Amino acid sequence: MLEQYKQIIRSLLDEKRCYHSECVAKAARELAVKYGADPEKAETAGILHDIMKDIPPEKQLAMMAKYGITLTPVERNAPKLWHAMLGAAYLKNELNIDDKEILDAVRYHTTGRANMTLMDKVLFIADFISADRDYPGVEDLRKAAAVSLEEAMVAGFSYTIADLAQARKPIHPDTISAYNETALGHDTK
Amino acid sequence: MLEQYKQIIRSLLDEKRCYHSECVAKAARELAVKYGADPEKAETAGILHDIMKDIPPEKQLAMMAKYGITLTPVERNAPKLWHAMLGAAYLKNELNIDDKEILDAVRYHTTGRANMTLMDKVLFIADFISADRDYPGVEDLRKAAAVSLEEAMVAGFSYTIADLAQARKPIHPDTISAYNETALGHDTK
Repeated sequence: MLEQYKQIIRSLLDEKRCYHSECVAKAARELAVKYGADPEKAETAGILHDIMKDIPPEKQLAMMAKYGITLTPVERNAPKLWHAMLGAAYLKNELNIDDKEILDAVRYHTTGRANMTLMDKVLFIADFISADRDYPGVEDLRKAAAVSLEEAMVAGFSYTIADLAQARKPIHPDTISAYNETALGHDTK
Repeated sequence: MLEQYKQIIRSLLDEKRCYHSECVAKAARELAVKYGADPEKAETAGILHDIMKDIPPEKQLAMMAKYGITLTPVERNAPKLWHAMLGAAYLKNELNIDDKEILDAVRYHTTGRANMTLMDKVLFIADFISADRDYPGVEDLRKAAAVSLEEAMVAGFSYTIADLAQARKPIHPDTISAYNETALGHDTK
């Protein structure tokens, strides 16, 4: 199946995004092995997580409407979140993937959510630390992920939220739920 | 009444905090005049907004329990929010203030909330720009407040949220609701 999925993303994503997807798949497999998630599922979620990201925004909106996805005001004003919501629906409806762990990990890989599963966390962090990433601070994230998934989560959310707030962009409530859980866990350790 | 309230805070707050309260009252009155809120109420809310802030944390918790205030996990882990929740309850129960505009402005002066009233915003911004404040960026906030209350709100929340995220401290969902409203309003102008 994985080879088929790689073929599919090659038809839907540009070269750079395909390379990113393969890097995330590799990182997700490694994190899964390290932290006890299913490596095959993690790799699959990694390959497919950005499957809708190169679809033009207007078409993403039309496809979401078709799949019955309704958007909150914050979501409508945060186009970077759309590919995750749409991606999970596309995997389910067009590729007939019904594994909830994979679908949820893709659905929440950008925002996070309250009570994230191990698979959610593996994909979320893999997307931050994949080999192709080179934003300021990526090395700190990689070090944190080598120590503990929770440490990497709080670092990832802290980075994301500060970045959005400074840019005065909307912040999804799911992101704050996830951040607060990790920050409180972190504080009380 | 205002003189009585000033007497009361002198008995409950240290000298620096009393001075801060008077500065916030002055800023709140000025903002109220500029933006069309009731200047007397704004000044009263300013004088009283930190009334419980010098009460020791353990006693704040006991008083909140007495007033029937229950805390979410985020609130329990953010002691800086307690004086606002407790402050409003104290004004209502001990000083017999029943003006909802004043009580709400005090209640939400630290977190903000969805659908903030004009009085909420006046106190929130007054607390950021009062004459005694000298944090980095205060001049930008003062300039923003001179232009528009909404501009100052988004700047204030942006500063607060980035600061909390970088310090990995919990962020109240009410703060995100308020921030998203102002950020979306700002974006779509």
